[in-house]
Amino acid sequence: MTASPAQTSLKALLAERELDAARNWLTLESSVAIAEEFSRLSTAEMAAAFRLLDKERALSVFEFVDPPIQADLLEGLREEETGEMFSSLAPDDQAELLDEMPAKVAARLLEGLPESRRAVVGDLLGYPAESAGRLMVPTPTVLMPDATREQALEKIQRNAAHHAMAGYDTEAADEDQNIEEGERSRSLTHAHAEIAVIPVTDDTRKLLGTVALSALVTAPIGTCVRDLMHAEKHHVRAAEDQEVAARLMQESDMLALPVVDDEGRILGLITVDDAMEVLEFEATEDAYRSGGSEPLKEPYLTATVMTLARKRGVWLVILILAAFLTINVMEIFEATLEAVVVLSVFVPMIIGTGGNAGSQAASSVVRALAVDEVRPGDIVRVIWREVRVGFLLGCFLGLLIFPVIFFLYEGTVAATISLTIVGVCTWACIVGGVLPLIGRKLGADPAVFSTPVVSTLVDATGLLIYFSVAGLLMADQISAATGG
Amino acid sequence: MTASPAQTSLKALLAERELDAARNWLTLESSVAIAEEFSRLSTAEMAAAFRLLDKERALSVFEFVDPPIQADLLEGLREEETGEMFSSLAPDDQAELLDEMPAKVAARLLEGLPESRRAVVGDLLGYPAESAGRLMVPTPTVLMPDATREQALEKIQRNAAHHAMAGYDTEAADEDQNIEEGERSRSLTHAHAEIAVIPVTDDTRKLLGTVALSALVTAPIGTCVRDLMHAEKHHVRAAEDQEVAARLMQESDMLALPVVDDEGRILGLITVDDAMEVLEFEATEDAYRSGGSEPLKEPYLTATVMTLARKRGVWLVILILAAFLTINVMEIFEATLEAVVVLSVFVPMIIGTGGNAGSQAASSVVRALAVDEVRPGDIVRVIWREVRVGFLLGCFLGLLIFPVIFFLYEGTVAATISLTIVGVCTWACIVGGVLPLIGRKLGADPAVFSTPVVSTLVDATGLLIYFSVAGLLMADQISAATGG
Repeated sequence: MTASPAQTSLKALLAERELDAARNWLTLESSVAIAEEFSRLSTAEMAAAFRLLDKERALSVFEFVDPPIQADLLEGLREEETGEMFSSLAPDDQAELLDEMPAKVAARLLEGLPESRRAVVGDLLGYPAESAGRLMVPTPTVLMPDATREQALEKIQRNAAHHAMAGYDTEAADEDQNIEEGERSRSLTHAHAEIAVIPVTDDTRKLLGTVALSALVTAPIGTCVRDLMHAEKHHVRAAEDQEVAARLMQESDMLALPVVDDEGRILGLITVDDAMEVLEFEATEDAYRSGGSEPLKEPYLTATVMTLARKRGVWLVILILAAFLTINVMEIFEATLEAVVVLSVFVPMIIGTGGNAGSQAASSVVRALAVDEVRPGDIVRVIWREVRVGFLLGCFLGLLIFPVIFFLYEGTVAATISLTIVGVCTWACIVGGVLPLIGRKLGADPAVFSTPVVSTLVDATGLLIYFSVAGLLMADQISAATGG
Repeated sequence: MTASPAQTSLKALLAERELDAARNWLTLESSVAIAEEFSRLSTAEMAAAFRLLDKERALSVFEFVDPPIQADLLEGLREEETGEMFSSLAPDDQAELLDEMPAKVAARLLEGLPESRRAVVGDLLGYPAESAGRLMVPTPTVLMPDATREQALEKIQRNAAHHAMAGYDTEAADEDQNIEEGERSRSLTHAHAEIAVIPVTDDTRKLLGTVALSALVTAPIGTCVRDLMHAEKHHVRAAEDQEVAARLMQESDMLALPVVDDEGRILGLITVDDAMEVLEFEATEDAYRSGGSEPLKEPYLTATVMTLARKRGVWLVILILAAFLTINVMEIFEATLEAVVVLSVFVPMIIGTGGNAGSQAASSVVRALAVDEVRPGDIVRVIWREVRVGFLLGCFLGLLIFPVIFFLYEGTVAATISLTIVGVCTWACIVGGVLPLIGRKLGADPAVFSTPVVSTLVDATGLLIYFSVAGLLMADQISAATGG
């Protein structure tokens, strides 16, 4: 029922070939829980588990797993089963899945669809990847502002009865019995959000606003659609980024968002379940990028070791090459290090603290950019905040460690380290705050300019600050050792 | 309309005291866009802008801003205005806002509510913070399985007409005209999701399932509720964590989730807009913690510099104290460093690479834990994956830098650094993968054991690996210099 972990895991049952117990496990869990468990199985285990489900259950589980897993599953099935699973999805989900498949398989799947549906999916694939157009349920039922509540409800019911799902063409359902079944099962989830909000248009299909199904149902008899229409008509253009659409839905608490063409005519609706998926994907992407790797498309436990290594390797290579900068800096000051060996003892602490302060600033600003609380134009405000925060933190840390180092070493060393910490913290906060803004300005994902990139850059520059401060405060010791 | 940035910012207009232009700006933007813009203003600017809105608009904007900003706004308003704004919120939002206010103000606001509503909000406050109970809209309309479609729709309409919003008590609305208005404005957003899914119960209010409003509306006349009821009845208990509830809603594409008591009786509904807010907050919390600071409650640009410094300072202090470990390690090997100064040159690169590899592993596992793709019980699988990924990456990086260092220095140095990189990468991936799992097991937020904590721990242990490898491969050089 709820998302509680099962007593014995499905994975263990499959590994021990306890097929009856596995079938029993599957019977007791919800489709959602099964779909979730799939993200923890290997491809072979998934296929084995999938074959234990009865047909209706299999369709329902198939809907709930992510497109990369859907693609994996389809590869393990016979051709006629493949077609059936694929046909059961809504057009926007079909378009997304086709993107995941090899071109040849995608073409075969598309050909298996009835002609009218193939045209709908083809239209969706015509929109750029990650655009709002890709995400929408096309051609929903629309209402005219002058209709009464009763006329509106009747139209909604009539369309639904005709199409099994608002806006889908009847021929598709008539041509192929499987499609009709699939759509009926689908209508249990996707369609609730889809019919929860109905676009209101003029007679050229230009969007005038939206009306909530709940508002229609609860209004007094005879009320006009115009009087129930939502005054603030949020919508997006089909070419708009999916993330913008999803964030608008989140901020405006909408159950479905109209998508329009350049002339403002209604094209389709994005449902809130799709918006949540987009936001989850964006959060995952940001989490990976902030940690310095490219995001995985598949679940962590399903991805191969090679995939994991590849996603991380690209950045590690870039960063280790950038780290040669630190070697340069260290070499420049090799004589100083040789003269006052104690200086090298503090190197890890200083670059570590700089990296941490920079990473804190970067993660704050990356997140603020993601939720649109900060924009690239705010760069001056961000710098001014980070200068003060970094200086404050640096002073606090400097004062904190001064007595410790004074006690362990001596006054000049303690003063050098403390002053360096002030400088490094301030500088790291500025770099951490500014880099994501510059990244966004250049059209890159700001999350890329987060922790590892920031800390690698701050490492080299932090060392410069360190040796400059040491050069000033410990000049006597250094020249005594090198000169003498 | 869409979330496009305004030409001249509201902030600039307010700063230049262009009040007419600011009023004009406010008229042209949607309530959602205004609420979003508020997250970029100071408290004083917010209050100034708020006073330029007409009453209905002000109520609508007030609903869309986050609770900490609501609290700020209320502090700047006169007492009678305060009461009105507060009354306009749904009970779950009222409970959330009361948590943000000083106890004295909270008590006054609560007293200003009609008695019946006060009881409802009081009940919500009785649930633990961050529990599903806190988030729900209490006592929704319920249906019996034997009702027909027409009886059901009539009951929904009757309840809504009575209460302005399903489930709220009539006396409240009668006692106070303001409340009734507020609830009507509120019903434009929250309530759509609330009425989109209706719980089906037996005559003791035990939850049997749910039925979608769209399913009711589109069903043929005379259909029984039982036949439209959703077979998989997802729900949560009131004491369950909000994040669990929100994630269940996301995974099962639900518009509203029933909340039940320990006997399975219906208590209320959580709506999808609240679930999205919870997930956004969790993603923000993870982003901050992964960057090594405590999450901000207010937007980045609204928080004071002191708040930013405090949220980051706690972790920086812990981490700099932990970094004294690196000083210990460096001191132990001070003789070695003195003997072969070139070793110190590579210290920043080695600990940097270890930190990066650890941060990549940690961010993958933290995210996988957050979306429930990995659980603490998977620890052996995670270690085995990370050992292989880390070793693979280490070998690749080691081979990559070997010729460069061989060319710049000599063979023994190159071999030492390359072998160290293999060891450090493998070790960093294990630590990064395991720490979040241990954190979760201990009941802490796994995101805390992410980048900065991992890299600080890996710094000290990475140095141990470095000096051990150097001790083996460069034994002759070291003993020659120290012994001679």
